[in-house]
Amino acid sequence: MIRLYDYLPSGNGYKVRLLLTQLAIPFIRVELNILNGETRTPEFLAKFPNGRIPAVEFEDGRRLFESNAILWYFAEGTRFLPSDSFARARALQWLFFEQYNHEPNIASRRFLVTHPQVQDPRRSLMDMMLKRGYDALAVMESHLAGTGHGDHPRQWFADNRYSIVDIALYAYTHVAPEGGYNLVEYPAVRAWLTRVSAEPGHIPITRA
Amino acid sequence: MIRLYDYLPSGNGYKVRLLLTQLAIPFIRVELNILNGETRTPEFLAKFPNGRIPAVEFEDGRRLFESNAILWYFAEGTRFLPSDSFARARALQWLFFEQYNHEPNIASRRFLVTHPQVQDPRRSLMDMMLKRGYDALAVMESHLAGTGHGDHPRQWFADNRYSIVDIALYAYTHVAPEGGYNLVEYPAVRAWLTRVSAEPGHIPITRA
Repeated sequence: MIRLYDYLPSGNGYKVRLLLTQLAIPFIRVELNILNGETRTPEFLAKFPNGRIPAVEFEDGRRLFESNAILWYFAEGTRFLPSDSFARARALQWLFFEQYNHEPNIASRRFLVTHPQVQDPRRSLMDMMLKRGYDALAVMESHLAGTGHGDHPRQWFADNRYSIVDIALYAYTHVAPEGGYNLVEYPAVRAWLTRVSAEPGHIPITRA
Repeated sequence: MIRLYDYLPSGNGYKVRLLLTQLAIPFIRVELNILNGETRTPEFLAKFPNGRIPAVEFEDGRRLFESNAILWYFAEGTRFLPSDSFARARALQWLFFEQYNHEPNIASRRFLVTHPQVQDPRRSLMDMMLKRGYDALAVMESHLAGTGHGDHPRQWFADNRYSIVDIALYAYTHVAPEGGYNLVEYPAVRAWLTRVSAEPGHIPITRA
């Protein structure tokens, strides 16, 4: 069976838990406490050199890390990933946006707020992270509300249906208030969060 | 013809220039000065809401942003992207690693060092960025040298051949010294940089 190395509060881990659950793919969850260095042991680093969760190990020993790459692998050939090549590229665009513009601000700020005991030089950038996180939410709002050039309102991020892009962006957006974000000015984002949470097989981030 | 919105010193822009050149795909390069807010005008944001280069506009009006998503789109079906589904997922893993662990440290530090006039709150994190950038280089070194569990030395990052993963990681690794990084302790990385630069059709980052 697949082994998923995970940390329950992690939105990146949650992405994989949620997709595997919705695909009805069984997996063994291996909880690692990232605060105690459990992802930086020699044993873990020998398998996953970047020392991060989520990470997946298959029964035949193959290994894969990076949450959005894991989503892509399991979604391939399912309804969770478009089949058209340009739609797939646009899906990837949003997955990279999530890891570059969204996660380092919204997820990192949530981590620092909810883990006050952790010393981190990024604490001096909390204001910058707040602003940049709101910038990412504004990009999401404009995409869903369809306010761009020649644009139209959308229900989902990719290809007019629920996909791994929605899973990836939902993971940290729905807990953004834990990082100090107020979503009141992002009505299209809030409506989309409700749609995502109503999808069949949805589980909360707290479900192991 | 394809329009590539670009900024010449950008490694993210260079990735796309390099791939399109090696694929012999013609394109019009539209240089935008990111320092003067040329990617934050209402006109640009209406097309590309994240306000960043590189971004591609096709003749039929379709648009795509995020450097690694653009690489993926053009590489699809070519020798620059594996065809096996697990090899593709591993390629994506490295592309996400590049944008999450490598670029925000190595590229950002290079930007701040080479643009001393730019005020940026991240200047207080130059030491952290240096350490995290070296961490990313160590992950690359271990992958190429093959020091992990059950591992073996490699010439390339994905599927035993030059691919868009090498292009993506090369873009900011080969100019890492401009950001204050010394590559002397990363011999496998240095040998790989030489291999990448010897590929047919290679162009330097300074080539418009």
